[in-house]
Amino acid sequence: MYPPLVLVLAIFFAVATAIAALSSPLPHPLDPLSPTELTEVRSAVLAFSLVASRPISFHYVGLDEPEKPDVLSHTNAAAAAILPRRAFVIARAGGLSHEFYVDVTNTSAPRVVSHGIHDGPGFPMFTTEEQVAAGQLSREYPPFRESLQRRGLALTNVGCGVFSMGWFGKNEARRLAKVQCFIVAGGTANYYARPLEGVTLLVDVEKLVIVAYRDRAAYSVPKAEGTDYRAGKAGPPFNGAVPAPGVVVQPEGKGFHIDDHIVRWANWEFHVGFDMRAGTVISMASVHDADADLWRRVLYRGFASEIFVPYMDPEEEWYFHTFMDAGEYGLGVSAVPLQPEADYPANAAYMDGYYVDADGKPVKSENIICVFERYAGDIAWRHTGVAGPIAPITEVRPDVTLVVRMVVTVGNYDYTLDWEFKTVGSIKTVVSLSGILEMKATNYTHVDQIRDDIHGTLIAENTVGVYHDHFITYHLDLDIDGTKNSFIKNTIIPKRNTGIRATGGAPTPRSYWTVLYEVAETEADGQVNINGAPADLLFVNPSKKTKVGNEVGYRLIPAGATATSLLANNDYPQRRASYTKKQVSGLYAEQSTGDDNLAAWSKRNRRIKDEDIVLWYTVGLHHVPCQEDFPVMPMISGAFELRPFNFFERNPLIRTRPPGNSPNCSCSFGRSG
Amino acid sequence: MYPPLVLVLAIFFAVATAIAALSSPLPHPLDPLSPTELTEVRSAVLAFSLVASRPISFHYVGLDEPEKPDVLSHTNAAAAAILPRRAFVIARAGGLSHEFYVDVTNTSAPRVVSHGIHDGPGFPMFTTEEQVAAGQLSREYPPFRESLQRRGLALTNVGCGVFSMGWFGKNEARRLAKVQCFIVAGGTANYYARPLEGVTLLVDVEKLVIVAYRDRAAYSVPKAEGTDYRAGKAGPPFNGAVPAPGVVVQPEGKGFHIDDHIVRWANWEFHVGFDMRAGTVISMASVHDADADLWRRVLYRGFASEIFVPYMDPEEEWYFHTFMDAGEYGLGVSAVPLQPEADYPANAAYMDGYYVDADGKPVKSENIICVFERYAGDIAWRHTGVAGPIAPITEVRPDVTLVVRMVVTVGNYDYTLDWEFKTVGSIKTVVSLSGILEMKATNYTHVDQIRDDIHGTLIAENTVGVYHDHFITYHLDLDIDGTKNSFIKNTIIPKRNTGIRATGGAPTPRSYWTVLYEVAETEADGQVNINGAPADLLFVNPSKKTKVGNEVGYRLIPAGATATSLLANNDYPQRRASYTKKQVSGLYAEQSTGDDNLAAWSKRNRRIKDEDIVLWYTVGLHHVPCQEDFPVMPMISGAFELRPFNFFERNPLIRTRPPGNSPNCSCSFGRSG
Repeated sequence: MYPPLVLVLAIFFAVATAIAALSSPLPHPLDPLSPTELTEVRSAVLAFSLVASRPISFHYVGLDEPEKPDVLSHTNAAAAAILPRRAFVIARAGGLSHEFYVDVTNTSAPRVVSHGIHDGPGFPMFTTEEQVAAGQLSREYPPFRESLQRRGLALTNVGCGVFSMGWFGKNEARRLAKVQCFIVAGGTANYYARPLEGVTLLVDVEKLVIVAYRDRAAYSVPKAEGTDYRAGKAGPPFNGAVPAPGVVVQPEGKGFHIDDHIVRWANWEFHVGFDMRAGTVISMASVHDADADLWRRVLYRGFASEIFVPYMDPEEEWYFHTFMDAGEYGLGVSAVPLQPEADYPANAAYMDGYYVDADGKPVKSENIICVFERYAGDIAWRHTGVAGPIAPITEVRPDVTLVVRMVVTVGNYDYTLDWEFKTVGSIKTVVSLSGILEMKATNYTHVDQIRDDIHGTLIAENTVGVYHDHFITYHLDLDIDGTKNSFIKNTIIPKRNTGIRATGGAPTPRSYWTVLYEVAETEADGQVNINGAPADLLFVNPSKKTKVGNEVGYRLIPAGATATSLLANNDYPQRRASYTKKQVSGLYAEQSTGDDNLAAWSKRNRRIKDEDIVLWYTVGLHHVPCQEDFPVMPMISGAFELRPFNFFERNPLIRTRPPGNSPNCSCSFGRSG
Repeated sequence: MYPPLVLVLAIFFAVATAIAALSSPLPHPLDPLSPTELTEVRSAVLAFSLVASRPISFHYVGLDEPEKPDVLSHTNAAAAAILPRRAFVIARAGGLSHEFYVDVTNTSAPRVVSHGIHDGPGFPMFTTEEQVAAGQLSREYPPFRESLQRRGLALTNVGCGVFSMGWFGKNEARRLAKVQCFIVAGGTANYYARPLEGVTLLVDVEKLVIVAYRDRAAYSVPKAEGTDYRAGKAGPPFNGAVPAPGVVVQPEGKGFHIDDHIVRWANWEFHVGFDMRAGTVISMASVHDADADLWRRVLYRGFASEIFVPYMDPEEEWYFHTFMDAGEYGLGVSAVPLQPEADYPANAAYMDGYYVDADGKPVKSENIICVFERYAGDIAWRHTGVAGPIAPITEVRPDVTLVVRMVVTVGNYDYTLDWEFKTVGSIKTVVSLSGILEMKATNYTHVDQIRDDIHGTLIAENTVGVYHDHFITYHLDLDIDGTKNSFIKNTIIPKRNTGIRATGGAPTPRSYWTVLYEVAETEADGQVNINGAPADLLFVNPSKKTKVGNEVGYRLIPAGATATSLLANNDYPQRRASYTKKQVSGLYAEQSTGDDNLAAWSKRNRRIKDEDIVLWYTVGLHHVPCQEDFPVMPMISGAFELRPFNFFERNPLIRTRPPGNSPNCSCSFGRSG
């Protein structure tokens, strides 16, 4: 990612409107903090007498969720009211990272119930305000002005942004960051396409001073022409393909109901939360088992925990581009208002989210989560009995999917993060990438001139789309039909027929495969590179069995984008994100060192058999850019699915009534059937 | 797959209506043979004096496509009229496989222009008629009647079907096949759930005699209850989840136009053909390059060439279940009429197909290919400029996909074979599986009773869902912007920074990856297991370059279902389908030996650099059944995408006008803009 860009001279930075506190009704225990609550959290922290340093800068405020057993035993509103409402806060004051737990159960008497100082490496997310301020530091800096002058550029033509500097072995006490700049002249909105290559500032984002400056080399600035992506600038002519307009009409209205943060649809019920770091949080997703007439929990909590994006250019201005978008910039903070009938179809509903600014005041993000039913022409199940005693028979059940979508724009990249719920019982998580590539200015204008490794693709004149990876890691607290689950690796192993029935063979000339059932006893057992030996990965509840005795479970099915990191194990970016060769990042990702990530936690190697286990799954893509990614990238996607595996006694949709026009529908029933 | 089933006593086998010959207008050179032409082909073969043996049984009749250069130079109807119309015929007579080329350019004077005898191993596809007849052989066979009697079953309660017997080292001169049976009593349509386990007949399907009989063991017959999938039998209650009804409305009508067999939509144009073996054939798919105002070819021809389904039970009644659905049963012959608003949405159009019966007479299959625009709420590209000089900006282009769908039901399994065309220039091929599992009867009623390997999952009482694979292989004659293409493997290789700029390093502490560009010089180089080292697989036209000098190309992107065969290399089923560890099956798949498949062809190791190359891609799934697959399987899918990679100068959709309600749409233009 590139950070949001700040003009050197004029600030046009768009900060969402700070809003006044509103009163709200009785919340669900997992509801995000309301504006009222956020306001009270701020008051409590500012009033906390043990932290006297000023200013206090708020970097994170989020719900401190009650413990799982408490939430599970307080699902109705009346019962929930007795659970405390608490916030977890990370704030900077006096050069330290403070952690507060604030009780806002009684909003008229908020109080700090716990305070600590984070003393490990790493820092909280950048605030928007400090990014804006740090981006402007260069404007009064004489060496920077000289660099511009040497290149014939005016100060008004340049904008700068704050780049996290990663971690390369040195634990800094200061919150340092790099600042790099772009040419904003030429009338294009796509300044990312026009880097001021070769110039880097090192700044203290807290003290707002320049610590180091480097003007290593000058490169041609790519031209502005052909880079703009705004409709009115890219065309006319508007000669791109436009399919016929189409609108989904739902004659009986929407099939889902949103009750505050609870979504109910078909055989699903779940809670949709919002967090300024993680964005969308799906909790308590339960599926209805029609045969048993029971709601059965599948996922207690799921969210995108980190997006690690290392670039593959070792050059001085590029090597530190090893971003952790959630921990450094915040996925929730970076979520953008969705565009109706473009980001989602007309039959959608949407939700807002609240986070806090650096001053701790609530900020409303409108229309950042949408919920819609997807009518894609898919089929849930079908069979045509082409022959036999009762032929011909055709039974088909069309499929509809419920989508919960957020778009996170972290500087240049736009991530579409979808949670899909399927009537068959599946939860599918899809990540789609669009937006603008990180581009490097080069003097090359044609491939024939290139003799060395340019660490990317020449995607336009003077423009290299730099090689990089995307690793999107999900935190999935699975509760397959209850809290205690086990992780099963069903490895598919080749066998040679022995020919002897007594040893499990048969007198036939065959090789075949069978399934080796292995329970992961510890966290180390639970680490899997899915590109290795073929295996079905299951999460089961060993205390719940089907009638014929199978453990009830769900299967993890990767659907593309299964790349794992190719960085050296002892390389610094890889040490921070070591879970990308298997799987989670810690809380303090900015300048984090990997000491608190999942790979480190897993070394404790806790028992995970029949426990409350969490799956961290990483969707990974190696991205070799191509010219089609310029000036803005078409979507590419990766996904994975959690699908029932012996969870139901049988196909849960077998008793679904067919569409009204089914030829076999001699079983007269109405819409309510 | 299980074959279509035949009742032992009564025949209810549904054969599509034989139709009268119709006259047709001037065909495109790739149009499938019309009913008139098929009728004339039959006349010519029957009149061919050098083959005197009777009966002549028609196993395959399809278009003998003109050579590619001829087709490419005759794209308009007038020019096409001078190309000959020819059929390729495989017929059995006198115990031999005859191959005929029949010229039907002048339908009033059809003539055989070439005749030969196939003298290698393997036989053509089964005809429907011989399957029906062979399935009935058991009814008068005393040992079979005794087997039924011992089990307390009446003859009227049993139906049998023809199972291809695979190839296990012995080249048969006779067309032998296995016959296995099912219980059709109990009122369920799902007889596949109730096998007459332990009994196998070996029959000569041509002479219609029983060659061998084996009643090895008796097993419990699974109960009928809970197996039926018909709406009126599975319910009431209809308690399966039913989302709200939704209909896609297109206020300006459909966005595609079908002109006979040519489909035009958005920036795509292609020909849709039909073949009784391969089913849907996509030809001459070209994408419009708006910037260059040119139609540029991507795919000359693509079709599913084989579906290999080996089962993983070495037991005597199961080891030979190693089906090749295209070569043995025919995907086109097995295509089923699609169910409106269930198999496809209301905004679809459909096409019919014609094949021949054993007597060579044309048979019409109605409504077997549908074409529709999918409005799934997808995004083509987007960016939100969250900051900077011209912020805020949000530009989003919604995405719509054109789908060409066929459903092939080969006995028990239903394969949905989709070709998706995307405005970004991609062709995506999706295979979805539903239908009914192959089930094995067992005496077990609970998992706790099982001590040995049952080669599957106990999915219901007395019922094992047997482990198996699905390998769906596509023949893709790519013509990336012209006929001569090369295959490039861009392997992603880890690098350690040397620290020295002169050797391509930089003085920074980083490992990284770069891309090793390798041209496949020969067919052997072109064989790739995509689960190996990460690599981008490209097909380029080395004689065409973008302005900055990149070779124009397309990239192959697997999207799930990348399993490869785990059978031993020297195992017989694997020798027939050896391409499933890399990639195509030959023409004579039934009892084929692997001598004429792609792996064998590739051993000739022809030069493939800058040649007219064909990509064979195999979508593969290891299927470990679960209870949800019973009594009918919910869809599971695998896919791959062919996506432009430096084919266009830039994102081909950058100049697409935004939807009407775009806030940045100050660039007033109408629908026609």
